Amino acid sequence: MREIGEFGLIDAITGLLDQGDDSVVVGIGDDAAVTAYSKGSQVVTTTDMLVEGVHFRRDTISDRSLGYKSLAVSISDIAAMGGIPKHAVISLAIPVEMEVERLQDLYAGVADVCRDYQTHVVGGDIVKTSGPFVISVTLIGEVEAGRALLRSGARPGDLLFVTGTVGGSAAGLDCLLQAEPRVEAAEEDLRHLLQAHQEPRPQVSAGRLLLESGFCTSLNDVSDGLASECNEIAEKSGVRLVLEGESVPLHESVRRYAASRGQDPLEWALFGGEDYQLVGTMKPEGVAPLTALFAKNALSITVIGRVDEAGTPGVTLVRNAQKQELKPRGFNHFG
Amino acid sequence: MREIGEFGLIDAITGLLDQGDDSVVVGIGDDAAVTAYSKGSQVVTTTDMLVEGVHFRRDTISDRSLGYKSLAVSISDIAAMGGIPKHAVISLAIPVEMEVERLQDLYAGVADVCRDYQTHVVGGDIVKTSGPFVISVTLIGEVEAGRALLRSGARPGDLLFVTGTVGGSAAGLDCLLQAEPRVEAAEEDLRHLLQAHQEPRPQVSAGRLLLESGFCTSLNDVSDGLASECNEIAEKSGVRLVLEGESVPLHESVRRYAASRGQDPLEWALFGGEDYQLVGTMKPEGVAPLTALFAKNALSITVIGRVDEAGTPGVTLVRNAQKQELKPRGFNHFG
Repeated sequence: MREIGEFGLIDAITGLLDQGDDSVVVGIGDDAAVTAYSKGSQVVTTTDMLVEGVHFRRDTISDRSLGYKSLAVSISDIAAMGGIPKHAVISLAIPVEMEVERLQDLYAGVADVCRDYQTHVVGGDIVKTSGPFVISVTLIGEVEAGRALLRSGARPGDLLFVTGTVGGSAAGLDCLLQAEPRVEAAEEDLRHLLQAHQEPRPQVSAGRLLLESGFCTSLNDVSDGLASECNEIAEKSGVRLVLEGESVPLHESVRRYAASRGQDPLEWALFGGEDYQLVGTMKPEGVAPLTALFAKNALSITVIGRVDEAGTPGVTLVRNAQKQELKPRGFNHFG
Repeated sequence: MREIGEFGLIDAITGLLDQGDDSVVVGIGDDAAVTAYSKGSQVVTTTDMLVEGVHFRRDTISDRSLGYKSLAVSISDIAAMGGIPKHAVISLAIPVEMEVERLQDLYAGVADVCRDYQTHVVGGDIVKTSGPFVISVTLIGEVEAGRALLRSGARPGDLLFVTGTVGGSAAGLDCLLQAEPRVEAAEEDLRHLLQAHQEPRPQVSAGRLLLESGFCTSLNDVSDGLASECNEIAEKSGVRLVLEGESVPLHESVRRYAASRGQDPLEWALFGGEDYQLVGTMKPEGVAPLTALFAKNALSITVIGRVDEAGTPGVTLVRNAQKQELKPRGFNHFG
């Protein structure tokens, strides 16, 4: 970093990124970015901060994947509102001794995720720090006015669903933390699990289908595990959710890897987090049309429970015909 | 922090902030914020990251002033586009041993600046770090479509101007770094200089007057000192600027304090930075109407030079009838 300096780095990074589409009126290089959104839309904004040694470790993720994931987690928040991601600003606090190549790799990953999700980097800030590497991403998207999908809309009688499969990211992390992970997982399983952890694919298309269908009543993304996300919906909506453990969709790779490790894969789905699938509630009449619509788009959606007719806000887990209170056990800083 | 945890802190902070106006459709507490902007407007976005020990030191700024200033610097970027600040997201990386009271003071300052500039905090992220305290602010505003004031619009024949007075922030910092600053400055001067450094007032109203007048051709805010900002305008516009040193408006407090310290106050104005006034160019016919308009709004604007008819992009400083090339000497990380 000392060799090329702040401005040399900005030039090197800007060269890796596209210049944006018509929605980018003023991109990188002035006091602020100017962006345009569709008529009749509202703006959706989310922000995430990642600290080396807290949120990521160099031995479990490459810099390129880190670039991918650091934007993907914010894209997932926009997806969880039913929105469309559009523009990102990225700030970095960089240890002075850091090699420029690491940052170029990081931005190559940022360019990858931007390409996959038609998102454009329109600004940022680069500063030095005496501490660990810090990445701060703010992502701005759009959604039809008044139609954002909130956590607070679940009503008695609704069904609880999740998109895709869950538990893969926690399985991938478990795998990465093993000294010799390849011993216990088949090559194909390993690929699935590592991608689930290192380069998760946020569910923007699924969020759009859910919003457009009109059947979805509440939505959240699976960043801290199903237990935590379902409790958030229950609390914000003031309802009791019933989650059927046996219905939770687990990928075959997760099942196989869990068996080889002697672990319970449902634990990963409930408490692992970082799957970045969408969990929410819908009106019962939405099941058939949404299942068909998802299948048509090479996506999947699974009913995993329901909103109870009564009861204090919270989540009941039903498993092997046994009921228990499902408490959140997500990652808590300063805990 | 260990005692109240992440969620306790979020509750404590949220209580300090207002709930926003009609433009805040969904505020703190869901996956993302949803905000609405005026019809026919575009969105203006800026982001700044501040690191303890790099951008601020506890012995020169209180936590409350730090909260004020951390948002003020971003508000200034929106002002420099002629925009109106609206919504902020704030992320903090917090050392585990930090006292919660410091963060409450910080957010009291954030609430102050939000009140002064009708800006609302709509989200954020709070994480822990093993390193120094990091504050990341992203500020979103609006501007009439196609009318944002850029750095690139200066044309030969335009006049160079600055709003208010400059040099006060650097004088204030010089003051703070003295063992006994009160010895050398009168009470009233001291108050002016310290406020200039610790709680700068971004020039949103001035930016709006400049945009609405139609006379302003380029605009920048004074974050790194006049030398650096003028060079940015010169480079982006592809023009040569002539800056008349004697015309640069210095506050009486700055002149008096500089005299008592045996320093050249123009050096502070040119290279000190953090004044958060606006510098830019305008059509010559704008001088009389803008001067009157600013005076009517209890603001000031001063012509400090012009855009040359020819010459390579850069800035010529004229002082005591001597010409010299004015190079930027702003703060450069990793330099």
